[in-house]
Formats: sequence, structure tokens, C-alpha cells
Amino acid sequence: MITSLSNPRVKQVVQWQSKARERKKDGIFLVEGLKMYEEAPDLSIKETYILEETLQKVKDTALAEKLNRTGYEVVSKDVFLKMSDTQTPQGILCVVQRPEFDLEALLKVENPLFVVLEDLQDPGNLGTIVRTGEGAGVTAVFMSQNTVDIYNPKTIRATMGSIYRVPHIYIEDMGALLEKLHKAGVETYAAHLKGENYYDSFSFQAGCAFLIGNEGNGLKKETADMARHYLKIPMEGQVESLNAAIATSLLMYEAHRQRSMK
Amino acid sequence: MITSLSNPRVKQVVQWQSKARERKKDGIFLVEGLKMYEEAPDLSIKETYILEETLQKVKDTALAEKLNRTGYEVVSKDVFLKMSDTQTPQGILCVVQRPEFDLEALLKVENPLFVVLEDLQDPGNLGTIVRTGEGAGVTAVFMSQNTVDIYNPKTIRATMGSIYRVPHIYIEDMGALLEKLHKAGVETYAAHLKGENYYDSFSFQAGCAFLIGNEGNGLKKETADMARHYLKIPMEGQVESLNAAIATSLLMYEAHRQRSMK
Repeated sequence: MITSLSNPRVKQVVQWQSKARERKKDGIFLVEGLKMYEEAPDLSIKETYILEETLQKVKDTALAEKLNRTGYEVVSKDVFLKMSDTQTPQGILCVVQRPEFDLEALLKVENPLFVVLEDLQDPGNLGTIVRTGEGAGVTAVFMSQNTVDIYNPKTIRATMGSIYRVPHIYIEDMGALLEKLHKAGVETYAAHLKGENYYDSFSFQAGCAFLIGNEGNGLKKETADMARHYLKIPMEGQVESLNAAIATSLLMYEAHRQRSMK
Repeated sequence: MITSLSNPRVKQVVQWQSKARERKKDGIFLVEGLKMYEEAPDLSIKETYILEETLQKVKDTALAEKLNRTGYEVVSKDVFLKMSDTQTPQGILCVVQRPEFDLEALLKVENPLFVVLEDLQDPGNLGTIVRTGEGAGVTAVFMSQNTVDIYNPKTIRATMGSIYRVPHIYIEDMGALLEKLHKAGVETYAAHLKGENYYDSFSFQAGCAFLIGNEGNGLKKETADMARHYLKIPMEGQVESLNAAIATSLLMYEAHRQRSMK
């Protein structure tokens, strides 16, 4: 049992918790809570820290078997509170290896449904998009380099486990990505004030990608200029824009609705 | 100019900022930022506090005229930081009188679109629902007594000004509300796991109300039991539920889409 706050493994977790750079360097992310542990692929789990009382609670359950498979380290309450990012910790934290996704393979999927995020800044928005994206059946989420860290603890929590299942890639060059999408026959739709047609007037049955910009500034001009189509979401009253996660969700589910129709 | 942190008006604002009970007792809410001040109805503004530098910035604009109409008090930076709830204050804060809405009048609206929230707990979710609700053209938002305070500063911020324009009422007795809705010919739809039909298989052209439950537990049994219809949102992958604001937005915009069709 680890009881010392100065234990090097405790210090390492605290570093990972607070520094995106450290998480990236080591190719990992942190998850907390029983549900997030349960859904993590066994082979991706590198380290697991658990409170004695949490260990007792899961005794004789499938989680106890999983703990035996992945291995774990019991830590004292003090140590856990130090390592945890949440206000009411569930007593289990694990270090998960980042998955790697192959852009070229994703571009070969038939009639894909992609989401392309440019410089999104709010971790909750990003996590919610990943969660809703799994629900709507998206093929993958692509993000510009300046998008908030998808492995931020707040983002991870907001994904509610979808982080394990929705392919996601940070993209260096947005222009090159759009070119590849077009070459693969994917239609690109920019959510944009210049849009003259409502989102539900397009057909999203074939491969498509929705381009969503930063919460305050929208898409960069050069990105929007490359999109094949502009679309807008109707807004009554004096509403000037919708929250980025809401707008993205409406688009993803409109595509899902169209694709489910006979 | 107010410069003293112990000025009674400063102390009062701090009380309002932190205590829902105090805001309720005095029938007010607080808003911050130029946009929120600009959109506040003149007659509802009770007090306005502004930094000297913010006052200079809006000189010769329509906002300066509004400030002259509503009156204002210049405060020192220390005082403003003490009163403000935001991390990067925009230098203007005002005290706004709560509007009162008439349930009976709202029930007489033709083909209304209502949202009924039961025990929603996240201020950001509530604010986002109000914002998206204005965009989708909802008639009003009804909330159970145990729903988070709509005048919570975080909720207010998330509404992006829609708080001024979307009628909203806290309801003492949810059962009585549902009875009144049914009597007024409004169909009630519960977003519920028991739902066997997808949300886009219903017609929302006539008067309707969407019932949305608490983030963790959903609707109470007695409320769900009273709803005329259950509906569900399709979810791919292993997603068990959507974020409450996302689910509500999908329903509101599906109603908007159907109502916009010729």
C-alpha cells in the first residue's frame, strides 16, 4: 500500500493530472471512477490505484476479476485525494495508454460521418461532442492542433466512456486534411454565418464531414473557404449562435436521422 | 465612486452573488458583461456598477446612452473584483428585477412548445437549454422546485441573454402542471428509457411539452407515469444516455424542424 505523498509514483500521477505536456510526452491519459475503469480496454490499462474501501466494495464482482487481470496498487486516502482531480472521488484512478488511429484507414470507411473541430476551447464541449458522437454513430473526430486537449480530465469525464470508442486524431494541417477528405469523396459542410441553406435541406446520406469552429470566433477564413458547402441552423428570437456542442450534436443527429430512414 | 469594500451596497451584491436565498427574497438576479447589460430591459435594471475604464470604453456609443437612462455607479477595481463572479470581469455588473410570467396565459398560446424540467442539477445545462430553447422557438420553460436556480450566475452566463426573453416558471406541483397541460390540449412526451418509439416518429406540429428528468436519475416515476407518450433518442455504440442539454436540444429542434416544413 502506498501511503507516502512523496512516493515517486504519486508525484508522477499529480504531474500527469495537471500537465497536458507530461501526459502527451508519456502517451497516456488518466481516468477516474468505476465506470471509466470498467470500460477501459484491459490491454490499455498501465497502472491502477484504488482505495482499500473501494476494493472491498467491488469484491466478488466482475470488477474484482478485472482488477486481478490488470493488477492494481492500494493507496491511502491521503494519497488518493492528492492524485485525484475530482471533488468526490470514487476511489479508483487509472493510467491508460493513448490509442493510435490511422487517418488513411478512416478515410477508406464507406459513407463515413466525420466531425472536424477547429480550435475548440472548452473541455466540456469537446467531451460532450465525443459522447454524442458515439451516440450518433460518427466514424471519427478530427481536431486542429489548437483544440483543447482531449485527454484533459474534464473532457474525459464529459465523454462518459466514449473516449475509448470514438476514433480521434489531432491534425497538423487542416488544409491538407480537407484536401484528403475531398479526394476520398467526402463532402465538407461548414457551420457558418455565410450559410444560406438550413442544415436539414442537405442530404447527409453519403460520406460527409461537419466543420465546427472555435466557440468565440468560428472557423478560420482559410478553413471555411475550403469547405464545399456552408450550412446554418435556424435560430428564432435574438439568438446569434448556439453552444458549439449543441450545434455539432444537431448536425450529427440530423445525419443519423437521414441515414436511418428507409 | 465606491472604493470601500465595506460599503453596504458592495456587501449586498456579494450576498446576492453567493446566496440563492437572498436573490430570491429580493426578487432580483445579477448579470455581468456588456452584452448582458445591453440586452437587459431598461425598466428591469435596478442598479448598475461599472469600472471607470469600462465607462470610458463605451463613451459615445449606444451603451453610454443606456447608462444615462438607467443610472450607474462607478466602482474601484478592488470593489469590482469583490462583487464579480467571473474570472475575467468585463467591468460592468447589474442587478436586474426578476420577471413574472403568467402560467394561465402561457397555457392559452396556440400550439405551444413547452419544456418541462424536473430536478435538473447542472447550471450550465439549464442555461444552455434556455439559450437553445429561444433558438428553437419554445413558448416557455417550466421547472420543478428542486431544479437548480435559473438565476445562478453560471446559468445566467450560459443563457447568453436568452434569460431575458424565454418565459420560465418554477412549478410547485408537477402533477397539477401536467393536468393543466392535458386540459389545455397539450401532448406530453417523456424522454424515458421505457420509450419504444424514436423522437422523430412523432408529430410535434400541435401543442406539445417535453418532460426531461434529472441528469443522473431521469424523471420521477409519478411524473413519467402521467406523461401521455414516451419517446427515446436512438443511440449507437455503448452510449447509455445523452447529456440532458443535448437531449433536450435534439427534441426542441426536431419540433422546430417539423413546424418549419411546408
